[in-house]
Amino acid sequence: MEIKKISEVNVNEEFIAFLLVSKVEVKTKKNGEPYLSLELKDKALTFQAVMWENFENVKDELEPGRIIKIQGTLSEYNGGQQIKISRLRVADEKDGIKLEDFLPVSKRPLDEMLDEFERVTNSINNEYLKKLIDSVFDGQLKERFIMTPAGKSWHHAYIHGLLEHTLEIVKICDLVATFHPEINRDLLIAGALLHDIGKTEELDYKKAFGYTDKGSLLGHITIAAIEVEKAIDKIEGFPEELKNQTLHLILSHQGKLEFASPVVPKTLEAIVLYHADELSAKSNAYKNAIIAESEGDKKWTKYIYLAETNLYIPDDLQKRESNEGEISEEKNHP
Amino acid sequence: MEIKKISEVNVNEEFIAFLLVSKVEVKTKKNGEPYLSLELKDKALTFQAVMWENFENVKDELEPGRIIKIQGTLSEYNGGQQIKISRLRVADEKDGIKLEDFLPVSKRPLDEMLDEFERVTNSINNEYLKKLIDSVFDGQLKERFIMTPAGKSWHHAYIHGLLEHTLEIVKICDLVATFHPEINRDLLIAGALLHDIGKTEELDYKKAFGYTDKGSLLGHITIAAIEVEKAIDKIEGFPEELKNQTLHLILSHQGKLEFASPVVPKTLEAIVLYHADELSAKSNAYKNAIIAESEGDKKWTKYIYLAETNLYIPDDLQKRESNEGEISEEKNHP
Amino acid sequence: MEIKKISEVNVNEEFIAFLLVSKVEVKTKKNGEPYLSLELKDKALTFQAVMWENFENVKDELEPGRIIKIQGTLSEYNGGQQIKISRLRVADEKDGIKLEDFLPVSKRPLDEMLDEFERVTNSINNEYLKKLIDSVFDGQLKERFIMTPAGKSWHHAYIHGLLEHTLEIVKICDLVATFHPEINRDLLIAGALLHDIGKTEELDYKKAFGYTDKGSLLGHITIAAIEVEKAIDKIEGFPEELKNQTLHLILSHQGKLEFASPVVPKTLEAIVLYHADELSAKSNAYKNAIIAESEGDKKWTKYIYLAETNLYIPDDLQKRESNEGEISEEKNHP
Amino acid sequence: MEIKKISEVNVNEEFIAFLLVSKVEVKTKKNGEPYLSLELKDKALTFQAVMWENFENVKDELEPGRIIKIQGTLSEYNGGQQIKISRLRVADEKDGIKLEDFLPVSKRPLDEMLDEFERVTNSINNEYLKKLIDSVFDGQLKERFIMTPAGKSWHHAYIHGLLEHTLEIVKICDLVATFHPEINRDLLIAGALLHDIGKTEELDYKKAFGYTDKGSLLGHITIAAIEVEKAIDKIEGFPEELKNQTLHLILSHQGKLEFASPVVPKTLEAIVLYHADELSAKSNAYKNAIIAESEGDKKWTKYIYLAETNLYIPDDLQKRESNEGEISEEKNHP
Amino acid sequence: MEIKKISEVNVNEEFIAFLLVSKVEVKTKKNGEPYLSLELKDKALTFQAVMWENFENVKDELEPGRIIKIQGTLSEYNGGQQIKISRLRVADEKDGIKLEDFLPVSKRPLDEMLDEFERVTNSINNEYLKKLIDSVFDGQLKERFIMTPAGKSWHHAYIHGLLEHTLEIVKICDLVATFHPEINRDLLIAGALLHDIGKTEELDYKKAFGYTDKGSLLGHITIAAIEVEKAIDKIEGFPEELKNQTLHLILSHQGKLEFASPVVPKTLEAIVLYHADELSAKSNAYKNAIIAESEGDKKWTKYIYLAETNLYIPDDLQKRESNEGEISEEKNHP
Amino acid sequence: MEIKKISEVNVNEEFIAFLLVSKVEVKTKKNGEPYLSLELKDKALTFQAVMWENFENVKDELEPGRIIKIQGTLSEYNGGQQIKISRLRVADEKDGIKLEDFLPVSKRPLDEMLDEFERVTNSINNEYLKKLIDSVFDGQLKERFIMTPAGKSWHHAYIHGLLEHTLEIVKICDLVATFHPEINRDLLIAGALLHDIGKTEELDYKKAFGYTDKGSLLGHITIAAIEVEKAIDKIEGFPEELKNQTLHLILSHQGKLEFASPVVPKTLEAIVLYHADELSAKSNAYKNAIIAESEGDKKWTKYIYLAETNLYIPDDLQKRESNEGEISEEKNHP
Repeated sequence: MEIKKISEVNVNEEFIAFLLVSKVEVKTKKNGEPYLSLELKDKALTFQAVMWENFENVKDELEPGRIIKIQGTLSEYNGGQQIKISRLRVADEKDGIKLEDFLPVSKRPLDEMLDEFERVTNSINNEYLKKLIDSVFDGQLKERFIMTPAGKSWHHAYIHGLLEHTLEIVKICDLVATFHPEINRDLLIAGALLHDIGKTEELDYKKAFGYTDKGSLLGHITIAAIEVEKAIDKIEGFPEELKNQTLHLILSHQGKLEFASPVVPKTLEAIVLYHADELSAKSNAYKNAIIAESEGDKKWTKYIYLAETNLYIPDDLQKRESNEGEISEEKNHP
Repeated sequence: MEIKKISEVNVNEEFIAFLLVSKVEVKTKKNGEPYLSLELKDKALTFQAVMWENFENVKDELEPGRIIKIQGTLSEYNGGQQIKISRLRVADEKDGIKLEDFLPVSKRPLDEMLDEFERVTNSINNEYLKKLIDSVFDGQLKERFIMTPAGKSWHHAYIHGLLEHTLEIVKICDLVATFHPEINRDLLIAGALLHDIGKTEELDYKKAFGYTDKGSLLGHITIAAIEVEKAIDKIEGFPEELKNQTLHLILSHQGKLEFASPVVPKTLEAIVLYHADELSAKSNAYKNAIIAESEGDKKWTKYIYLAETNLYIPDDLQKRESNEGEISEEKNHP
Repeated sequence: MEIKKISEVNVNEEFIAFLLVSKVEVKTKKNGEPYLSLELKDKALTFQAVMWENFENVKDELEPGRIIKIQGTLSEYNGGQQIKISRLRVADEKDGIKLEDFLPVSKRPLDEMLDEFERVTNSINNEYLKKLIDSVFDGQLKERFIMTPAGKSWHHAYIHGLLEHTLEIVKICDLVATFHPEINRDLLIAGALLHDIGKTEELDYKKAFGYTDKGSLLGHITIAAIEVEKAIDKIEGFPEELKNQTLHLILSHQGKLEFASPVVPKTLEAIVLYHADELSAKSNAYKNAIIAESEGDKKWTKYIYLAETNLYIPDDLQKRESNEGEISEEKNHP
Repeated sequence: MEIKKISEVNVNEEFIAFLLVSKVEVKTKKNGEPYLSLELKDKALTFQAVMWENFENVKDELEPGRIIKIQGTLSEYNGGQQIKISRLRVADEKDGIKLEDFLPVSKRPLDEMLDEFERVTNSINNEYLKKLIDSVFDGQLKERFIMTPAGKSWHHAYIHGLLEHTLEIVKICDLVATFHPEINRDLLIAGALLHDIGKTEELDYKKAFGYTDKGSLLGHITIAAIEVEKAIDKIEGFPEELKNQTLHLILSHQGKLEFASPVVPKTLEAIVLYHADELSAKSNAYKNAIIAESEGDKKWTKYIYLAETNLYIPDDLQKRESNEGEISEEKNHP
Repeated sequence: MEIKKISEVNVNEEFIAFLLVSKVEVKTKKNGEPYLSLELKDKALTFQAVMWENFENVKDELEPGRIIKIQGTLSEYNGGQQIKISRLRVADEKDGIKLEDFLPVSKRPLDEMLDEFERVTNSINNEYLKKLIDSVFDGQLKERFIMTPAGKSWHHAYIHGLLEHTLEIVKICDLVATFHPEINRDLLIAGALLHDIGKTEELDYKKAFGYTDKGSLLGHITIAAIEVEKAIDKIEGFPEELKNQTLHLILSHQGKLEFASPVVPKTLEAIVLYHADELSAKSNAYKNAIIAESEGDKKWTKYIYLAETNLYIPDDLQKRESNEGEISEEKNHP
Repeated sequence: MEIKKISEVNVNEEFIAFLLVSKVEVKTKKNGEPYLSLELKDKALTFQAVMWENFENVKDELEPGRIIKIQGTLSEYNGGQQIKISRLRVADEKDGIKLEDFLPVSKRPLDEMLDEFERVTNSINNEYLKKLIDSVFDGQLKERFIMTPAGKSWHHAYIHGLLEHTLEIVKICDLVATFHPEINRDLLIAGALLHDIGKTEELDYKKAFGYTDKGSLLGHITIAAIEVEKAIDKIEGFPEELKNQTLHLILSHQGKLEFASPVVPKTLEAIVLYHADELSAKSNAYKNAIIAESEGDKKWTKYIYLAETNLYIPDDLQKRESNEGEISEEKNHP
């Protein structure tokens, strides 16, 4: 049997495929015997799967984030589809399979984004803020920061999404700083870089972007505030006023109490960061929602709860997407 | 008697000064005789004024927006200050006085902004949108557009404020368009240029930024939509879909029904325009609120209702303002 | 085979029937071949239908609002019912079928309503408002106005519903005008007649009361305001103050910003129109919701989202409906 | 000294006048001696008054609702005006002064309203509801019902206001009942008559429309429900279903929980009563707010909190008010 | 055939069981013949059931709250399960079956709660309040009070739940009264005992905790207020001020208008009662929601609408539940 | 001159008194010379004060929280009162003056509260939580914790208020824990003790309960979370799950996002803590608001914004307060 993409498998067909594990449970049949119940993912699809027997020796290796190779059959069940697994093993290095192959990934090249990230961190002149950024994005956190999506499903919900989102906000903030010399540009950019780092612990991209217990109980804002406070504590001479303003940027960046910020923006930099975040998040989210339903001559998406409306799909959207190159050429204006 | 600035006059001092009329009423004394009651403005201050007699021959020339030359006395009345006018005439050309001398004005040079405005309009490639912009900003409307503030008191509330605000939004939109090839850049920029033109009829800058009757009864959004619809009607071949999307940008630009938009944003361009508008408006408003109370070692403004908080005044704000040149030099980064 | 009403057809029965097309799509089978997917309506029911082959020569004639004659079978599919069509043609004049036969229709006789409408328009004394009403309800718009429902599903959601709703509001406004001589009765009645005309373009009754693209992007309030503003522009000497007040009635008639009015009611006539509209709309909506579930000894409807509750069905409702004549006789009181 | 209207008295003038007592307190001077502090009212004005001595023998007769004859002086105090009383006695029958002379009164003739009220109660055919209305509006309650205003300050805030308001609602309900045979007209009219009777105990018109303790602790809705429930209990054979529906009309008539109704409207009659109440209340309130500020060529009232806006004063308002007769003549239309 | 618990029956198995009737309807088959449609309940489960024939002679005995003995088969239908009944009779005394066997019941022993209830009523010193409590909880109401749940599904939703909930509130109020001598403890405890008695008429525990018509149309708050007002009326000399405060406690106990209280808390006792009620209700509701999903190593419940979140299930919850005795031993502290 | 209480000083009288400094500013006279502007407080009153000269040598010692001895005159100014200071020195030990003499203080004896606090901390059995409490309330923080009020003005707004409030919550939580064995009592009590410790840095009782910069920019919730997280970090073996739950109690204790909690309560302990906090805070706040206006036969307080109503003052409130002893005697019941 040949290895297939799950999207090409027909109902009742037997197949072999690699899939990503997003949930694992051992459940009990009516007759009291255990069976394995899995949730498996491919880039765009999610499947329920069961394995009735012979899973004892592999069971302990399974956990969310693992890629497995299975042999099974796609069958109909309860009005939906279910995979019945006959054989299963965890993929290993020789299979040459990567997590990124099973999860959506940013369209921007990673290298380009990493270069940009480095240029931004180097543009910070204030010595304390520079040290802070360097110490926070040091080693392990940066690695997770690069991989993590910016959200579970709404905006930038893909691998490298948090990095892409952060860079968009930085550019918007930098532009607005040119309008107002009163803005402390270094503070604003540092805040932009740090504001969402709590998401690296709130979201677990290996669980296909699920929340961690810590994330649900504390929230990414508090996680980030604690992290940054500790990093500042280790920098000698970091001014108290600057520390309070930096933490304030993190705490207030969702703009309103009902959006889970424990304080509202009270500084010029904080109000800019909040609205830059909104602009980046919403434009990405709307774009994705429209593209996801752009097919044929369909003019409207389904009702989108977070937008409180359905969205319009313009006639020329598809042309626009494919002509990306030309469009950016036209941009030689102010 | 020398001509004085009203801010330099002491209580009970007699003086001569030029002031801007913002309200005119003829009222009646207890004894049944008429007297003249005026509201007068200088750049930062507003005064109640009365003229008890000898105003009959000048009365009909007075109306909001007129600059007058008065001789009078500053006296205390009812816990506040009041000007008692003994002589009054309307200023004429020979006095060399301009409206801009009595109202706050944008800090950006007008010429620079007009150049930028022209470059932007010329960057629109779509022939129908280009024609639309050219016909709308033709003659009289453009003149008012240049003079009008963007708001009565909250953000960009000064002469040329609407122009400054519009250009900020255009730049933000242009940046975001580089993130998303799916954005119809011409449509977005045209929407940015047109979205607030209703304010030229809603606000009367000659009344020191008061609302007109039409403005209060219709609102600037509907005024703009009607104006633009009529202009489109005169352009042969303007595509129906493009027309609906253009009007949608104007109608939805306040983002939420409760902010007086009759429809919420339903296109990618509309959601970008709404958040770009918010970002420009709020950063300008917070900046002005902070600067207005920045004095001595004061750390907090009074409670600002539209921000739902009081705002923080950083230690280094004043240094930052005065060093404007240097700061913009540091900006050689991504 | 005899022509049947679709409501009388049993599962797995073959039948011939006339039905109204509300959606048309050409989709693709797994094997890559095209098939026709339709949504078909009868007065009370909606069906999904498929035609697997032989639809090429009829396909281009199909569009929402068309009545078709089909031969097919009613089958179960995915827990619901589906029509499999074997033969299909568009109905023609000889079939003697009308759109009204497939859509719900007002219970008030149309002639009676048209008479009443004419008496109302003739009762307007103000020459400018009379001209305005005459020019707006001239020809094509009046035709659509008569056919259009007042809503998609909530109130007066049937053919002639907008006319019935408008006449109810006019009568309520006329009564309230007798309470307050301060009310400008002509202005109020003109506003009542005009306030919802945008619905003739917002709703497409041929699509079984779906929204048009223009309707979704602009909203019926703005559509009406633009329409009326253009009509006023053509009437010489129409007073500016009257124009602003008339447009204000249209713009504010939903009473609150969050109900999509861009301005709240600011005149006496506007507040009366808003509440008269509410009274007509809500009483119609509640009545229909209660009747729709009135059967047997059921005492409560299901939860109704727009009412935020379930509604009570009184014991004597059905007696009351059938005794309509007698009840109106009892009404000889003040 | 001649008896004067307080509105004609000048500052520092001594005068004699009749005034209505709305508050009475005995306070203590710095030196420990008691003095009398009063709040006095005339139709449109409210005054603080003090009497320094010689009030012991009259003190116990004073209470809100009493009319007194005073001699005193109008003086300025603390930026406002204050009456210093030198002599004071309670008015008696010989003075020929009535409460209505000191409080605003409905413009509709009382006799006309009482006739109408009787016709309405006689038009109820259902024997149980007829008995209920007769027993509730029996004797003492009817007397208070006739005198009480419908509100403290917002709508129908004058003597006979509750009666006027109730009759407006009855007429609106009767009109809407002609639209829908499904409406139980007797139930609806009975509900309209009863819905606000709790205000006779909630408001004390003798205290110039202040709230009673009972009114503040229970609210007029519960007071009415208890009253009506007791009256029904005494009517033999009153059907349980009719009782619950009648009480429901009272309880739900403010339409929403946040407007202090403990249940939302769940019957057809209840939704009609709620919106008829709104229509009567709001049109009366807006009219009064506009008239109160209609003077000269003023175009806008001050900001009205309950309307959430300022209101427009049309040019022809005053003409309209004075021509009341003619306007009602024009009304010979449908 | 042996009598079974319904939870032990397998699909397609024939069985005999006792079940509680919660809904009864006679419906019509396609062929026009009647059939019996029932909703049946066991402690934790709800079933749809049909009986196709031979139900005429038993039909009239069936009503919600009856326990019946059936013979039937459990079959799959429409994706769910359905009981097909072949034989049916109403249970009688000889069967020895009680309602409590079919509904969830409080875990606190009833005797213990009744003792506590008596001690509380005897602790009221104020003679009027003591008489009031005694007369209200006299005979029939007390019986229903003891059986009724405190809610339909959210908190204390089981037999004796209202009693358990009331006693919790009493204890909390008694504690808070020790903090503040200003609290009128007798009034507060009387209010706590009376505040929810309307639920005995609002909820029908025999219908498995459904609402009565009266309950839906009036609400339990008004039902209680009427009941208590009548009881007070019969107690000679009951002080007016005390009466108003007692009724106020009932009316305001849901704390906010939008939670269906017609007045907000305006006394010290009222604010304590409201928050004591919240504390008892919410802690019970959250506990039940967590326990209901506590199984295996599950860490989170599903999304709970009334909590606006999903709830965390701690690791040691199950140990804690089973060790109840030990835990209460540790409690020898302040 | 004798030392006086400021409340006994008359206008224009010269006096000597001790007062608490709450604000200090050096301002500039019209003539350019500096003068000293102070805000001074006594237990109940706040005064503006000026010192025109001779303040240079004392100026640097002045700061909020200092007690000073002044000689001056009380004069009227701008409709209020102002102190003109002629001599001023900072109080020293020999004056025997304490901060508590100038600020409101809890009525509960401090020793009693400290004993209770110790018993509570000792009742925690869990070793990790016990260590955490001991380390947090170690030394400096405990000192501030004992002095700090629980709020600026609403509830427990007096010296020792935070301690009193915390102990009330602990007792309520302990009672509720007896209802539910599922509650982790140690966790709940630890959370109760820790939840408000951020107020020791948010509020500065030396500034008469003003906010610190850090408090305004971070909020007391985040301050506490950071503090506790650091303390936990130093306790070896502290379980991760326990840590997250403890931090969750602090973060969610205000119950709703709009009340500034960044996460809503998601555990049983968290929902109990939130409502216990509400109960303690609201009952204290209402009591104080009622007592503050309890004088003569006044029945109602002014409108209280945080209660959204005015509050009722019962007749017997004063008797109740003075009879405190007797009332607590009656409490020998369940």
